[in-house]
Amino acid sequence: MADPSTSPPLTRESVAAARELIKPFVHRTPVITSSSLSALASDVGAGAGPGPESEGEAGAGAGGGKAKPKAKPKLRLWFKCENFQKVGAFKARGAFHAVERLKREPGWLEGGGAKKGVVTHSSGNHAQALSLAARANGIHAYIVMPSISAPPKIAATKGYGAKVVFSGSTSVEREAVTTKVIEDTGARLVPPYDHPDIILGQGTLGLEFQEQVEAMIAEEHEKEKTTGEKGGETTRKKRKGLDAIIAPCGGGGMLSGVALSCEGTGIRVFGSEPSFQGADDAKRGYESGVRVEAVSSLTVADGLRTPLGRVPWSVIYERRLVAGFYSVSEAEIIRALRLAYERLKVVVEPSSAVPLAVALYNEDFRAMVEREAGEDGWDVGIVFSGGNVSLEALGKLFSENSEVAK
Amino acid sequence: MADPSTSPPLTRESVAAARELIKPFVHRTPVITSSSLSALASDVGAGAGPGPESEGEAGAGAGGGKAKPKAKPKLRLWFKCENFQKVGAFKARGAFHAVERLKREPGWLEGGGAKKGVVTHSSGNHAQALSLAARANGIHAYIVMPSISAPPKIAATKGYGAKVVFSGSTSVEREAVTTKVIEDTGARLVPPYDHPDIILGQGTLGLEFQEQVEAMIAEEHEKEKTTGEKGGETTRKKRKGLDAIIAPCGGGGMLSGVALSCEGTGIRVFGSEPSFQGADDAKRGYESGVRVEAVSSLTVADGLRTPLGRVPWSVIYERRLVAGFYSVSEAEIIRALRLAYERLKVVVEPSSAVPLAVALYNEDFRAMVEREAGEDGWDVGIVFSGGNVSLEALGKLFSENSEVAK
Repeated sequence: MADPSTSPPLTRESVAAARELIKPFVHRTPVITSSSLSALASDVGAGAGPGPESEGEAGAGAGGGKAKPKAKPKLRLWFKCENFQKVGAFKARGAFHAVERLKREPGWLEGGGAKKGVVTHSSGNHAQALSLAARANGIHAYIVMPSISAPPKIAATKGYGAKVVFSGSTSVEREAVTTKVIEDTGARLVPPYDHPDIILGQGTLGLEFQEQVEAMIAEEHEKEKTTGEKGGETTRKKRKGLDAIIAPCGGGGMLSGVALSCEGTGIRVFGSEPSFQGADDAKRGYESGVRVEAVSSLTVADGLRTPLGRVPWSVIYERRLVAGFYSVSEAEIIRALRLAYERLKVVVEPSSAVPLAVALYNEDFRAMVEREAGEDGWDVGIVFSGGNVSLEALGKLFSENSEVAK
Repeated sequence: MADPSTSPPLTRESVAAARELIKPFVHRTPVITSSSLSALASDVGAGAGPGPESEGEAGAGAGGGKAKPKAKPKLRLWFKCENFQKVGAFKARGAFHAVERLKREPGWLEGGGAKKGVVTHSSGNHAQALSLAARANGIHAYIVMPSISAPPKIAATKGYGAKVVFSGSTSVEREAVTTKVIEDTGARLVPPYDHPDIILGQGTLGLEFQEQVEAMIAEEHEKEKTTGEKGGETTRKKRKGLDAIIAPCGGGGMLSGVALSCEGTGIRVFGSEPSFQGADDAKRGYESGVRVEAVSSLTVADGLRTPLGRVPWSVIYERRLVAGFYSVSEAEIIRALRLAYERLKVVVEPSSAVPLAVALYNEDFRAMVEREAGEDGWDVGIVFSGGNVSLEALGKLFSENSEVAK
């Protein structure tokens, strides 16, 4: 990792520069839509299948009075499919950017940097992304993983050409082994989210997302002109692009990057988290003004069990580039996940279903959109962060929750 | 359904005309690739996970002699994602075309055709496709379904605005009810595959596929020029587009349409089927010269349990527009299905995994490609026909077969 003090400033322009650096290496992932999902999102309260109220959640805070009427926002949903990204997740962007920046650090390559290599102690998507980015550049990669890791995960990481170094399973043990690797090899640490180069890399998906939706809306207008056809709703204002983006928030590297990519555009960026066992740490920190530094949650959205990092916090909270946070229950996440598979036909991991669950089921979010957007409604971008999920775990999830989630 | 005698001739030009007719109503579905799947397809025999031999299939016909060496063809795979089509399957193409043709039949609209409506007794993707196409045109639709049909299927069909008419579950009972509907309402029958208008409609996916791959290969060449980068393999001949397409074959409407779309292009079209319980009826018919008229198979590829229709047969066999058929086992289908989910991150139904299974595991197919294509290899198009699958069934499939299929 390049010394953070040498990183470009955290601005929209730096995200654009990051995009140029990684362009040859990552996919411009597609943006998809579903008229049935947008209709559902605009009509969840009106009998379109069991909403949250069927589990007695609605009105829970209403003091026993009569249930509040459901919000009826107009939502047109757009999905940025980072599940189709290299290594199956947006993490490829940050990893490739970190490596490109490192290559440009004065003296690093000349000092044998490629042979010394890079190292990380994440065992998830970031580990695979870093392995791939290193291999593509002829750089050694060391991945520190607990020796009890699932064999397929170990095999996948080795498959990208990295050297797997085993450790104990606590974070103290992993960090100790990582330090040892650095001492022995001179490898440079590339953390999964808490670094400006990573944040700028992840933010590139936000720039693409904005351009793609603008182009798709322009195409819609064009089509309406030639066919005389009108979309489902009357459009009072001329729609131009996204009004908002909802992204999942774990360590916050991607959310803060996306927020940077929207700075000055007028597009509101929201964070989304599971509420289960305190996984909504970023929301609690954002609302109290004090970053929550530890999380211990076994939420089904396993990519979001991480506390918000320091650098992401500076973008998200201190600079107020994120407009707010919303959280959803495990049942809502699974229900949204099911809809992603059934309506959009894409394989996404549970963490990716969290922002969709907010759009569909979070009454605070929905009431806010109804209030702010009125009749015009909003074009809301949903970030599908990744698609790496065990099919056995998925099968179990859908079988066990078939009654709840349908 | 328009009278077949008034249908356009079964030619590539008629497929192009069909495409113009349905263009405003259907999606131009994306074509995707995966370098890891193409690598796997070019290297299945070389230890890339358990191939068929792990189940004792290889050498079964070798009379106890030493096992034949595995074929090593070079395959670059391209996937046409009709799972992203309206109603989640290619069937939307044929249904919209059938309705467009009917609207153009002299006297039909003027004679109150829209009110009389259309009717079919398929209860699968075709029923939903016809319902949607009818609704989009303000035409009544009647769908005859066995009263024992799964409630979600009934609800989905009603969701598209069709009137569901219940019948007994045998085909005799269903046809009797269909005849009654026609007598009572004057509705026109729209069969699922055995009609020229349906075949021409489905064939439109083949035209798109050809254009899309040509454009994508041209882009690759462009990229190589600017970056100096080369693809994985040395390219001796200048690649221009698809060398072959493998499509699943049930009733054969889509396969014959795709074959028409390739006529005169030099692109070879192959049919693929499950071998389980005689579901390889088209293959057996093609090889014996006599169409097999009945099939009773419970293959996991449930869209392919249908015997080949009469009109498709005339295109596929009599005009020899299909170059051959290949079949695969249930275990091979499930293994390919798993790869589609894991590597491509798309939700497809088991029938869609059949052509991929042929490319990966059918030794006859692979040896033929090695022989015909040599060092250059082939660009092979795989048709992902649809993505409508029960998540519970899928979950069960992946859990039960986790050991076999990995």
